[in-house]
Amino acid sequence: MSVTSVEGFVAAGITAGIKPSGAPDMSVVATADGTPVAAAGVFTSNKMTAAPVVVTRSHLERSGGLAVAVILNSGNANAATGQQGLADAERMCELSAESLGCDSDHVLVCSTGLIGFELPMDVIAAGIPRVVAARRAAGGGEAARAMMTTDTVPKEVTIDGGGFTVGGIAKGAAMLEPNMATMLAVLTTDAAAEPAELQGILRAAVATSFNRLTVDGAESTNDTVLLLANGLAGPVPDDALAAAIADACGDLALQMADDAEGSTKTVLLRVTGAASDAEAAKAARDCANCQLVKCSWFGEDPYWGRIASEFGAAGVAFDPERITIAYGGHVVYAEGRPQQPDAGAIGAYMRQRRLHLNVDLGLGDGRAEIVTVDLSHGYIDENSRTS
Amino acid sequence: MSVTSVEGFVAAGITAGIKPSGAPDMSVVATADGTPVAAAGVFTSNKMTAAPVVVTRSHLERSGGLAVAVILNSGNANAATGQQGLADAERMCELSAESLGCDSDHVLVCSTGLIGFELPMDVIAAGIPRVVAARRAAGGGEAARAMMTTDTVPKEVTIDGGGFTVGGIAKGAAMLEPNMATMLAVLTTDAAAEPAELQGILRAAVATSFNRLTVDGAESTNDTVLLLANGLAGPVPDDALAAAIADACGDLALQMADDAEGSTKTVLLRVTGAASDAEAAKAARDCANCQLVKCSWFGEDPYWGRIASEFGAAGVAFDPERITIAYGGHVVYAEGRPQQPDAGAIGAYMRQRRLHLNVDLGLGDGRAEIVTVDLSHGYIDENSRTS
Repeated sequence: MSVTSVEGFVAAGITAGIKPSGAPDMSVVATADGTPVAAAGVFTSNKMTAAPVVVTRSHLERSGGLAVAVILNSGNANAATGQQGLADAERMCELSAESLGCDSDHVLVCSTGLIGFELPMDVIAAGIPRVVAARRAAGGGEAARAMMTTDTVPKEVTIDGGGFTVGGIAKGAAMLEPNMATMLAVLTTDAAAEPAELQGILRAAVATSFNRLTVDGAESTNDTVLLLANGLAGPVPDDALAAAIADACGDLALQMADDAEGSTKTVLLRVTGAASDAEAAKAARDCANCQLVKCSWFGEDPYWGRIASEFGAAGVAFDPERITIAYGGHVVYAEGRPQQPDAGAIGAYMRQRRLHLNVDLGLGDGRAEIVTVDLSHGYIDENSRTS
Repeated sequence: MSVTSVEGFVAAGITAGIKPSGAPDMSVVATADGTPVAAAGVFTSNKMTAAPVVVTRSHLERSGGLAVAVILNSGNANAATGQQGLADAERMCELSAESLGCDSDHVLVCSTGLIGFELPMDVIAAGIPRVVAARRAAGGGEAARAMMTTDTVPKEVTIDGGGFTVGGIAKGAAMLEPNMATMLAVLTTDAAAEPAELQGILRAAVATSFNRLTVDGAESTNDTVLLLANGLAGPVPDDALAAAIADACGDLALQMADDAEGSTKTVLLRVTGAASDAEAAKAARDCANCQLVKCSWFGEDPYWGRIASEFGAAGVAFDPERITIAYGGHVVYAEGRPQQPDAGAIGAYMRQRRLHLNVDLGLGDGRAEIVTVDLSHGYIDENSRTS
């Protein structure tokens, strides 16, 4: 149910025909009564910004942070498509507004899929009235499914905030990176909040969830996280809303890691003892994005050498005699030397889907956490096919 | 012949027994008459510095840039091995010096292979007298072969400088990165030059060759490039020597790319039109190290979208309307829009082993060149096996 677990929101997902496969490829999330509600958005920092990001940003600005609906398509990112792309993204909002009976500035738009191809606007124009007409109070799951690209499962979350609810749907299985990337998420809540307040809460939640996730170090042109709040549950304490939104984002981010392209391991990397938080974050990210380290996870190999080498090369304060590397509770490197954990125990640990890798630099109080995945044959198969 | 194509140098390679496979794993390159000659070295910047790098640096300092020989082993990197590792690297030099009848400070040492395991010193101690005894004027090829780890072919080069010769052997097939990484190279020349002069020439040559090469963005603990000059050909013009050394390094770097782990494509990426050389280099490196872009090369897919996205995310001055992306002469993206090169022609182009990717940002005079490779199943197989 997710986004539609929240009272006052409807959603739908249909097959418009954008994807040659015939899989669902168009979604809508909207207020049930068609009135504008408070909205906030966080977007990619990639300068090759996709047209829907440009248009959604400008709609939120022009409306003062109000929205009725989000229209989404998968199968085509409408990125690197120049002026035509901008016109097409605006047209998607106009067509949605006509069907919904609202102002075009109150429609936000997200696209995901291949970069560099113009949208098939005839297919899209035929699909929009259909998806809008299909919207219903139980449509969250269909909407999540129609956002998928290389995802193998839809991602949904519902958080009971105690007196209010937060729901969310998301897609994303590659190009994830601490600055987000080809990931889309739409969150709803019935808590009451001003747009400016929502924006701050959403930005903070993204920082500790999607921005801590890295799959392959690439950053997308289309990343968007949107939040709509209709206020039906009335005002709630700021920190309660912030916590619920953060929980929803964190849950969706972990679902993305678990379903990342071809991945067989989700790795929760915690760096402590760095000279500063910034140095911890830099080293964590370098290690998480290192192809050699990723391959060692795929091989279920607790090889400390590559990890120590990656931290030594990260350009941060580093002393080979002080670094400690552990998988779960199994220390594999400490005091300048490899350690010999019990082979059976660490072997069993490495066979799990989720691994906790703890690296302590032994130098200061700096710390960082990041979520990443391994590098497998499945990733290559997914990404070397002709586009 | 390579290093031994230069008059006055001898070399050898043997199976000492470090590698379980029984493949050759110990090499020596030395002056034929055992006298010290001018020497220079360039090393990894990884702070997890391997013991042989620490020892070789200190020997060059103590000797004032003079050396008789380089002893090398493959199969074990002697990295992340603490105080024992330093003692073992010193011991390798002492044993070599005994066999050669020279000062231990005049022996330089290189190791390559797995990180985090102590050297099997009994095997090494038995091998050193044997490899030294085997040294001969035609031994360059054997020395190159015994340096190999995951290399599939030995790398050798001989440059005729016109009145002098430069020879080189190298290994390296992974962890290559613009700051070098698990690559070893030993160069010899009969040109006469002072150690300080040699050092400047070598540093410049590395900057335009090995440091322009990136395979996977990881930087090794052991990278070393050494140059020995015995002066038998007498003094030569500085720029002639610099050019010959640069040519030798450039040739070896391209051989490394062509033999990089699992690679099926060597990509020569040229970035022009950036706001500065530094921005061109940053964007080139990000693009070269992007897993998604690497997979597209493996798939022989001229997909401009990922490349444009990577440049947009590189944190450099960027205008999507001004970037031009071309494979060879085939423009695939320009003026803010995908271009449609002849499908047959670009298809044939992408099937070549070596691809020229030219990206012009259309903004300034900044430029950079980098050599990289694709990401294939072979790379994962090579790097996910239990160490």
